[in-house]
Amino acid sequence: MGLILLRYGEIALKGQNRQEFLRCLRRNVRRCLREHHIAGEVESVGQRLYVRTEQVEEALAPLSRVFGLVSLSPVREVPRDVDAIIAAAIEEARAAGLNENSSFRVQARRADKTFPHTSPEINRLVGEGVAQALHARVDLSANADITLGVEIAQDAALVFARVIPAPGGFPIGVEGRVVALISGGIDSPVAAWMMMKRGCYVIPLHFSQNEVETSKALDNIAQLSRYSYGWELRPFVLDHAATVMPTLEKLRAIGESRWNCIFCKRVLIAKACEIAEEQGALGVVMGDALGQVASQSLANLAAISYGAPLPILRPLLGLDKTEIIALARRIGTFAISTRAQAPCAFLPNHPVTRGSLSKLRDILNRLKALEAEPYEPSI
Amino acid sequence: MGLILLRYGEIALKGQNRQEFLRCLRRNVRRCLREHHIAGEVESVGQRLYVRTEQVEEALAPLSRVFGLVSLSPVREVPRDVDAIIAAAIEEARAAGLNENSSFRVQARRADKTFPHTSPEINRLVGEGVAQALHARVDLSANADITLGVEIAQDAALVFARVIPAPGGFPIGVEGRVVALISGGIDSPVAAWMMMKRGCYVIPLHFSQNEVETSKALDNIAQLSRYSYGWELRPFVLDHAATVMPTLEKLRAIGESRWNCIFCKRVLIAKACEIAEEQGALGVVMGDALGQVASQSLANLAAISYGAPLPILRPLLGLDKTEIIALARRIGTFAISTRAQAPCAFLPNHPVTRGSLSKLRDILNRLKALEAEPYEPSI
Repeated sequence: MGLILLRYGEIALKGQNRQEFLRCLRRNVRRCLREHHIAGEVESVGQRLYVRTEQVEEALAPLSRVFGLVSLSPVREVPRDVDAIIAAAIEEARAAGLNENSSFRVQARRADKTFPHTSPEINRLVGEGVAQALHARVDLSANADITLGVEIAQDAALVFARVIPAPGGFPIGVEGRVVALISGGIDSPVAAWMMMKRGCYVIPLHFSQNEVETSKALDNIAQLSRYSYGWELRPFVLDHAATVMPTLEKLRAIGESRWNCIFCKRVLIAKACEIAEEQGALGVVMGDALGQVASQSLANLAAISYGAPLPILRPLLGLDKTEIIALARRIGTFAISTRAQAPCAFLPNHPVTRGSLSKLRDILNRLKALEAEPYEPSI
Repeated sequence: MGLILLRYGEIALKGQNRQEFLRCLRRNVRRCLREHHIAGEVESVGQRLYVRTEQVEEALAPLSRVFGLVSLSPVREVPRDVDAIIAAAIEEARAAGLNENSSFRVQARRADKTFPHTSPEINRLVGEGVAQALHARVDLSANADITLGVEIAQDAALVFARVIPAPGGFPIGVEGRVVALISGGIDSPVAAWMMMKRGCYVIPLHFSQNEVETSKALDNIAQLSRYSYGWELRPFVLDHAATVMPTLEKLRAIGESRWNCIFCKRVLIAKACEIAEEQGALGVVMGDALGQVASQSLANLAAISYGAPLPILRPLLGLDKTEIIALARRIGTFAISTRAQAPCAFLPNHPVTRGSLSKLRDILNRLKALEAEPYEPSI
């Protein structure tokens, strides 16, 4: 039976949320294994989770996508005995390719302080043993080719050479639900991913304009699903034109089509808030990054947000395009988002780039006057 | 006269904003130099800015804090002649410590395509010249100890070995103004920094509870000022108790003191929106990260945001505490934020951690009933 050591962010775990966080994390780890048909046992041991399975290699990639984990390592489990630890470290180092031309260091962590050797002592003893056996050079700096980890737990010692990064954040489920607007572009899937990372159940919502963009949106949602252990991403797909046309026609009637983009987003948000209400969601996620394009000016964000009944969550607000693209590549949505694109049919020639709130209120009043019933309840 | 090459993010510069971006960036670079009493000339050359100055070393650190720049390099400027370039590369490599025990590579960029040699040819010619002169090993990978850069501009060739990172983003001034709530904690200065990075004029607003936290907030604002070329950070400091007490007393009167934290934030936001209106600002910046502490639950963010007249900008929403701390260290606010802290005087024993909007509306109505005049215009 193989063993995988899972690490979670200790810094996030002050006080009352700890038990809920761990319960949720274990549940999602189990669902991850089940979804990939991997038989395995999950248990909490000290500040770690252990996964025992015969399918260690198959489990690593899926587990590296579980939010709440910061890293994982396949480990050798040996008795708490210095000679056994050294022997395991030699095997592990050899498997990792350590030889007389490469360097290594040892980083011990003594979770159980009753172990007779301190961490620096373990580092020295194991370092000497491995250096002797493999004729490799010790390099205490971060430049070492290989870092050997040793964890002293209560019942065993764990030895490892690989540390696979995981996304961090909180396990999906510790926060509530949010509705995430997903287009065919680069930003919105990354924004949804960020909220999943912070523990939200994401309900994807796509407004379909054409097959090209809709297939990109759905493919991106499928990519996000690879991270969504503990929650099925079931997208709502609504017709874009049917949703926005009534409002855009009225805008044209009053000669304000330059405001199309702002009102389009207001209508989509209003619809997202309706769905959120039905689904018990508490916010609407959007991919805006301040100033990235002319339509994402501060003034336009204010005009778009004005009067929204739920908070608009914009986790990419402060990021540069290069940072967003790096995240999109990492989560596997970039290649999909950058496929051939179909333009929006409602884009005016000179869209408003600095929509003022006073002008917005004026337009809202004129739209209201156009019909007996109010234009939109609160937006 | 020395020369510094400044690079800005080309990816951010599609279309119409380009000229405004560059004008603003040059202005901020000039202000940066002036503020540090560095005499220098700034000019646009192709996709770069040049700074000519006798005080190259003094200028590097300040310039590395100008938003809109992605990196800078002190360069040697030589005629567009291969031998001159090789000679400069040898000097530059020697100054950077290249010797027979280290490796290097050459990365040429031919901004002017009329230059007779292609970039790969320049890489090869310069690489051979440097390798021969300094007996150093060529390593084309990113593992090379030293990377020598060569840029072929229209009138000269530039050679450099140092690339100093800068924060990226947009020059301060291309977006509008925002009011940023700054406490004595870790998060809020980072949030303000993120909005500065996206080109905002930040107006800091601190609500003073005690000297300990206020001195931390003011010290952090001073740290942020090191990045605020082109805009003076003039903090508003208001008395916290005077601002929130009337509302918290009414909450106590109706037996809802568990909602203190949510209403405290609502009142601070209402005040921030007032100041924003006076100052022509279009949003209120807060340091919330979803779920970081129990009071930053999705439900509480919704209850806090409900009815706010301006958008609440939360650039840290999707970040982990570890990511926020890394940023705080980088911008120099972490050590200040983590000085001894003074607790909030109004924290209830069991603050609401999942404030629902229906309960919020109920409380708002009961507060209104308590007085003839409405409690707060829109919040």
